[in-house]
Amino acid sequence: MVPEPVPFLGQAAYIQLVFFEGLALAVQTAPTLRAKEGLSAAAGVALRKHHALIAELRLQGVEPVDVMAPFAPAAERLESASRGGDWEELLLAIHVTSGMLDGYFSRLSNGLHADLARRVRAILDEAGSATVLERELSVAIAEQPGLADRLALWGRSLVGDTLLIARSALRASDARGLEERVEPIFTELIADHTRRMDALGLTA
Amino acid sequence: MVPEPVPFLGQAAYIQLVFFEGLALAVQTAPTLRAKEGLSAAAGVALRKHHALIAELRLQGVEPVDVMAPFAPAAERLESASRGGDWEELLLAIHVTSGMLDGYFSRLSNGLHADLARRVRAILDEAGSATVLERELSVAIAEQPGLADRLALWGRSLVGDTLLIARSALRASDARGLEERVEPIFTELIADHTRRMDALGLTA
Repeated sequence: MVPEPVPFLGQAAYIQLVFFEGLALAVQTAPTLRAKEGLSAAAGVALRKHHALIAELRLQGVEPVDVMAPFAPAAERLESASRGGDWEELLLAIHVTSGMLDGYFSRLSNGLHADLARRVRAILDEAGSATVLERELSVAIAEQPGLADRLALWGRSLVGDTLLIARSALRASDARGLEERVEPIFTELIADHTRRMDALGLTA
Repeated sequence: MVPEPVPFLGQAAYIQLVFFEGLALAVQTAPTLRAKEGLSAAAGVALRKHHALIAELRLQGVEPVDVMAPFAPAAERLESASRGGDWEELLLAIHVTSGMLDGYFSRLSNGLHADLARRVRAILDEAGSATVLERELSVAIAEQPGLADRLALWGRSLVGDTLLIARSALRASDARGLEERVEPIFTELIADHTRRMDALGLTA
């Protein structure tokens, strides 16, 4: 698959902004200062990824805001799909969607030309929110009876939405020869998702 | 004035976290993608200041969260004092409170020992949200009749709260010989505030 660099970068940048906004909301509503502090570092990583992708867009000679604008509806769909009903659902939503979509964009970036592919992978693969989200979710699951069942359901409901967003992202990025070659990637994304849920003791 | 380094750093770090949360809220509720993008960079600067101050606390051999915890009530007071009724009031609140408090902590840091003072000043003096806040506020003031008058009133109401927070910060930082020497600093902070309001065409 060969995504067009400009829409690819614009969409990847916008998605990091959505993750940042989710993490910022998690900071604002964190029940403890320790959680706030850990999540603020994760928010910083998402923001750094966003700005690094924006810098790549500038290197392509385009105005980032103009390139991102058409993806606003998709970004809003991702945002509203992943807020959840409370703080723990918000955390799992960010964990699930950013885990899947970072993995997805990182894999898609292999189709870019070599230099850009290397830089984009380096940006997207920076370890970010996973550790702190896993830690805070594990604490919450241990403390609140019934939360594990609720989160397992919630996690499952997020997968469909996230795959839809991934599929529309592919189409928007003008990737050539996609439909038949994207299925193996989706299979990998779902396997990664199952591992992430397992790590929390949740049935995927 | 000679502030004790640990409470000084803890409080300065917490205040940057409050500015970050305000800017993140401004990102989330921004009416345009261009505003969102500019504010996200400003949020990144506040977060960088916060984490740089946290790193200074670790250098002092203390656990940052423990040091910050006692300042939670003051931070919440600052936060609730500076949210405002709408997006423009939020922007002005961040502009006024971060302008005054960054200036205040930067001046207080002169009382720390030389190496630490230099590093803390470098952290706090990084140009942050002022430019984007000024730009977005100017656009809004030009577009919305009546907004200037409302924001002028709002700006005035923020000064008293901010000075109260500055005064309690001083006390909490165990600064010695403060009361008689802080008045000239407050005079400077108010002069800076007047210049900031003037730049927006608002009466301070």
